[in-house]
Amino acid sequence: MDPVDIDAALATFTETWSPRLLASINDYDVKLVKVEGDFTWHSHEDTDELFLVLDGELTIALDGPEASDEVVLGPRQLYVIPRGVQHLPRARPGTSVLLLEPRGVVNTGDTGGPLTAETQPL
Amino acid sequence: MDPVDIDAALATFTETWSPRLLASINDYDVKLVKVEGDFTWHSHEDTDELFLVLDGELTIALDGPEASDEVVLGPRQLYVIPRGVQHLPRARPGTSVLLLEPRGVVNTGDTGGPLTAETQPL
Repeated sequence: MDPVDIDAALATFTETWSPRLLASINDYDVKLVKVEGDFTWHSHEDTDELFLVLDGELTIALDGPEASDEVVLGPRQLYVIPRGVQHLPRARPGTSVLLLEPRGVVNTGDTGGPLTAETQPL
Repeated sequence: MDPVDIDAALATFTETWSPRLLASINDYDVKLVKVEGDFTWHSHEDTDELFLVLDGELTIALDGPEASDEVVLGPRQLYVIPRGVQHLPRARPGTSVLLLEPRGVVNTGDTGGPLTAETQPL
């Protein structure tokens, strides 16, 4: 493989909530995603999921809409959502995130719906 | 878990080639390491290994000392060393790297020696 430049990768697309595959390590994928506004409540029953913020600000609401738990992440801050935990990412404009999870994880988890997006190649 | 701030984590240690555990995702670990100068030639027979440069400049020589292959990574650039590939990381002063690999991988791989270091908690 060639080295991957995150900023060059960010310059190749504008769609939000549409992950791009940056690299694979064994059966795990590292993905790059631009995010803005609210995603959808969902969980992943079989896997943890790592968010590393690159730019902007990402808030991850946790434990469902009745709860008030959330974490707020800026650049160079990361968080792992444990498997089975309901979460809703929301972001300011201009936010980009690196995701790490096993290959084949669906972005909307057990919720599905119109925000479901296949991971795209760069 | 609490969110992890990479820069706060970097401020807690000065040792080079001594990885700190930042987070775990399933049976994978995300580690933070400060690097400077030459490491040692080694490979990991059973796993790929991801390097994401945070600060500074990391050169990864590849395929053994007789080869001239290398990749040079600056901040926000990443590379995956495939399993079994001999590699020697070398870095300018002030370089820090995020590593991703399965839990239990030894930093010096099949080479061992004095640079072998257990992953430390933050």
